[in-house]
Amino acid sequence: MDDTLVSQLQPGQLLARGVCRHLGSHNFVAVEEFVPERGKRVDVMALGPKGEIWVIECKSSRVDFTSDQKWDGYLEWCDRYFWAVDVDFPTELLPDDTGLIIADAYNAEIIRLGPEEKLAPARRKALTLRFARHAARRLHGYRDPRL
Amino acid sequence: MDDTLVSQLQPGQLLARGVCRHLGSHNFVAVEEFVPERGKRVDVMALGPKGEIWVIECKSSRVDFTSDQKWDGYLEWCDRYFWAVDVDFPTELLPDDTGLIIADAYNAEIIRLGPEEKLAPARRKALTLRFARHAARRLHGYRDPRL
Repeated sequence: MDDTLVSQLQPGQLLARGVCRHLGSHNFVAVEEFVPERGKRVDVMALGPKGEIWVIECKSSRVDFTSDQKWDGYLEWCDRYFWAVDVDFPTELLPDDTGLIIADAYNAEIIRLGPEEKLAPARRKALTLRFARHAARRLHGYRDPRL
Repeated sequence: MDDTLVSQLQPGQLLARGVCRHLGSHNFVAVEEFVPERGKRVDVMALGPKGEIWVIECKSSRVDFTSDQKWDGYLEWCDRYFWAVDVDFPTELLPDDTGLIIADAYNAEIIRLGPEEKLAPARRKALTLRFARHAARRLHGYRDPRL
């Protein structure tokens, strides 16, 4: 993606881009705008080498965070939950018992892991299948774009 | 993918392209050149809505088929196994107890399902995770191509 394309992304998408790059260095793969169940959409869902599932919500500003009433509904869809914000974000707004990632469009760093609350096996199985099908469907769209 | 790109694909890849399109109409998603374990690579691996795992080997000619000594090693990596061949392929060469798909670069049709041999749960779990990570990694390569 060149800088022209970067300039077309929304602020939250720029953070997601850096987050996804950084997750690769932890051997996690990630998809964006993932729907864990009808009516919910998370910014980034990541899948680790042992099947660990992380959710990362990207917040580009104080207003972006304070207007989000839905985030605690995502906790039940992951083993670990993170916020991703830029270096100027007032991180004291964020709950202590959540993970924290500082990101820009090019990279990111995990500052705080937050607690791990392991998913029940049945939900992990269903989420992994849904992640796999989401990623393959999007990939197919790139490989065979006339579809 | 326009016709210029189609012309750059190998015969087996052209079949795989039609197969992947057709699988979508059965609500299966698919990835190409998937490695179920070190040293094995399948042409197409497909994942169904309930987690069904299919392997499809694409054979562009008689020689392509008769030179393949590895195919029965793929049976243990799927619930159903298929050959995909073009309309001129001598299908009497293919074992009766395998699935059959007739394909071209644009579409395909399932002629014979073949028997179902369900994977053990632990292998299905591991394969689904590997599929998910494969698809997400490839997708990321398209979304962020400088990586």
